[in-house]
Amino acid sequence: MVDVVKRVAVLGSTGSVGRQTLDVIRAMPQRFQVVGLAAGKNMELLAEQIAKFRPEFIGCPPEPADVERLKQLVDIKQRLQPLEEIAASAEVDIAVMATSGNAGLRPVLAALRAGRNIALANKESLVSAGKMLTREAKKSGARILPVDSEHSAIWQCLGSEHQAAARIILTASGGPFRRFSLEQLAEVTVAQALRHPSWQMGQKVTIDSATLMNKGLEVIEAHWLFTMPYDRIDVLVHPQSIIHSMVEFIDGSVKAQLSYPDMRLPIQYALSYPERLPNPGLPRLDWSQVKSLELELPDYEKFPCLRLAIEAGRKGGTYPAVLCAADEVAVGLFRDGRLRFVDIARAIERTLEQHQPVSEPGLKEIEAADTWARKKILELVNGADDC
Amino acid sequence: MVDVVKRVAVLGSTGSVGRQTLDVIRAMPQRFQVVGLAAGKNMELLAEQIAKFRPEFIGCPPEPADVERLKQLVDIKQRLQPLEEIAASAEVDIAVMATSGNAGLRPVLAALRAGRNIALANKESLVSAGKMLTREAKKSGARILPVDSEHSAIWQCLGSEHQAAARIILTASGGPFRRFSLEQLAEVTVAQALRHPSWQMGQKVTIDSATLMNKGLEVIEAHWLFTMPYDRIDVLVHPQSIIHSMVEFIDGSVKAQLSYPDMRLPIQYALSYPERLPNPGLPRLDWSQVKSLELELPDYEKFPCLRLAIEAGRKGGTYPAVLCAADEVAVGLFRDGRLRFVDIARAIERTLEQHQPVSEPGLKEIEAADTWARKKILELVNGADDC
Repeated sequence: MVDVVKRVAVLGSTGSVGRQTLDVIRAMPQRFQVVGLAAGKNMELLAEQIAKFRPEFIGCPPEPADVERLKQLVDIKQRLQPLEEIAASAEVDIAVMATSGNAGLRPVLAALRAGRNIALANKESLVSAGKMLTREAKKSGARILPVDSEHSAIWQCLGSEHQAAARIILTASGGPFRRFSLEQLAEVTVAQALRHPSWQMGQKVTIDSATLMNKGLEVIEAHWLFTMPYDRIDVLVHPQSIIHSMVEFIDGSVKAQLSYPDMRLPIQYALSYPERLPNPGLPRLDWSQVKSLELELPDYEKFPCLRLAIEAGRKGGTYPAVLCAADEVAVGLFRDGRLRFVDIARAIERTLEQHQPVSEPGLKEIEAADTWARKKILELVNGADDC
Repeated sequence: MVDVVKRVAVLGSTGSVGRQTLDVIRAMPQRFQVVGLAAGKNMELLAEQIAKFRPEFIGCPPEPADVERLKQLVDIKQRLQPLEEIAASAEVDIAVMATSGNAGLRPVLAALRAGRNIALANKESLVSAGKMLTREAKKSGARILPVDSEHSAIWQCLGSEHQAAARIILTASGGPFRRFSLEQLAEVTVAQALRHPSWQMGQKVTIDSATLMNKGLEVIEAHWLFTMPYDRIDVLVHPQSIIHSMVEFIDGSVKAQLSYPDMRLPIQYALSYPERLPNPGLPRLDWSQVKSLELELPDYEKFPCLRLAIEAGRKGGTYPAVLCAADEVAVGLFRDGRLRFVDIARAIERTLEQHQPVSEPGLKEIEAADTWARKKILELVNGADDC
């Protein structure tokens, strides 16, 4: 049997998911080839990756200074390309969208419009523009393959039984503050928020996990990926992060997907789909060690970001874009010591309250809502006493 | 859309699985119709079932006295038929094989030879004659659909990914004596052994669950149903009986199937396959109540029946038939107060030790091994001091 080599572009190759994607590809050179790389940060690492993988396509970093720096670090013969071009190229079998924040939206849209399958790690794009992106994917026949461990779990559990799914149960580790009182939450430091109990991830998503905003964004993501109404998506806290999510079917049967928390597994599954590939480098669950899988309902009072996200998702329109943008800024302010942990939710909520939504937004309206929200939350935090 | 009504024969209709099968069918008259009923015990209940469902085919009870009794109890116009005839009839879409013990083997074989799909609850037939039955099924194109909750779980987890399965993890409740010491096990009474912590089942399988023989038989069953080598079938104790089994795939991902312990779910799945059907009568997991799913390795020293079964499975030939038959007799002797709980394993082991195996047995050799084992274990128990 001749193996077909999939040509993969990794957009956001220097981030946590990007680096782990390259690990997976390196472990199976007979199946995957890196044909595109792009990053907006860490030109040193990008230069190393370019020297190692010699991709056909290199994305143009957004900052001109970074472009110069990259060219000094590594010999590049080809033209640096916009990410949209790489994502939409017919020379790419699958583009892994691992850029952070709202930088991912345009390349995702370009890929889907061109009918290209994408492996989506950038949840912000689907949260902000879920209706538009899923509509474009449907039109072109492109597929959005999830890379988040939770959505990968749901996707694996659904298998060929999507029609029989009744309910999605998204699990959440609960983050480092699961057992904190409201008083303790008021005193949380940045260093504490960056210590996730089970996952090694980028800083933004780690803090989003601590506020449970990350789980809220994942609820919206699940809604769009699996066309599941919000009242049939539940969140369940599971501190061991071994059950990555579950699906309840119409007969009451539930399927769960389990593994140690390791992003390489969902990344590999998105790349290898519809196949699974053996990878001895991925850890196997050791059942003599897995003694108990705990499950509990989330506390929406202590973690209001979860509620805010689900509400924004239900309202739709430009609300989720505002949520995403305001959260990105709020997390930045928290990391800079300008906002207390408990005030992240408050600042986002006040921003959402002041938003004038657009109900069926296109790219322009979504980007405008994003810009508005970033400005507004800064105004609120800088100007107000209670934020 | 017009629903297709499946014509179901229930062989062993008065036992626990048989009665629950009729419950499922009664809940969805637009999808299932009872066309055959048979039982070897409880003529009163069989007569009631016949009066209620008016099946075309009625199985002939093995005891002539029962035939007379049945005819007195209910007005029967048609000829009472051998179970083999019903199971193999082209008028039956699916036969549920829920007879107990070795009475199931011939009808199962007849159905498979005739190319008829069966829903198999009688595990003894597959344990005793797995090689022969799976060969016949392959030849005729018949399918053996599992009804055991564990095998149904594995089947559901495999979905369309059978080729990518690396390992099966069969869960076991651990039975009522999971925390007993060897000394406590020596004092176990029949009443204690009949109190299963999570499942309502027939008496034989309840005692088999207490010795873990049931799990050993299920390992052999899984070996044949899913063509999985013994060294890739693990047993894991899970006292809550909510995870019904799991499958590990070649990439390290694990899928589990969960539900409250209720046989109606796997029965319905076997009947409705490849579809799932909504059934509001089946309980949904209440996540506010499911707080912890515990997992631990089984204790092969305290529960030697598990080891004996796996060894018999690995050896193959007529050993599993001897195991089944000796176990059936040993459980009967225990229930009659003639064998201590801990001596069940010892008596079966001594029977296996004295067996002269046949390596590729047909029906005749399997039935001969069964007869030999029943006689031998009685001799050993009656004659020996240490049994």
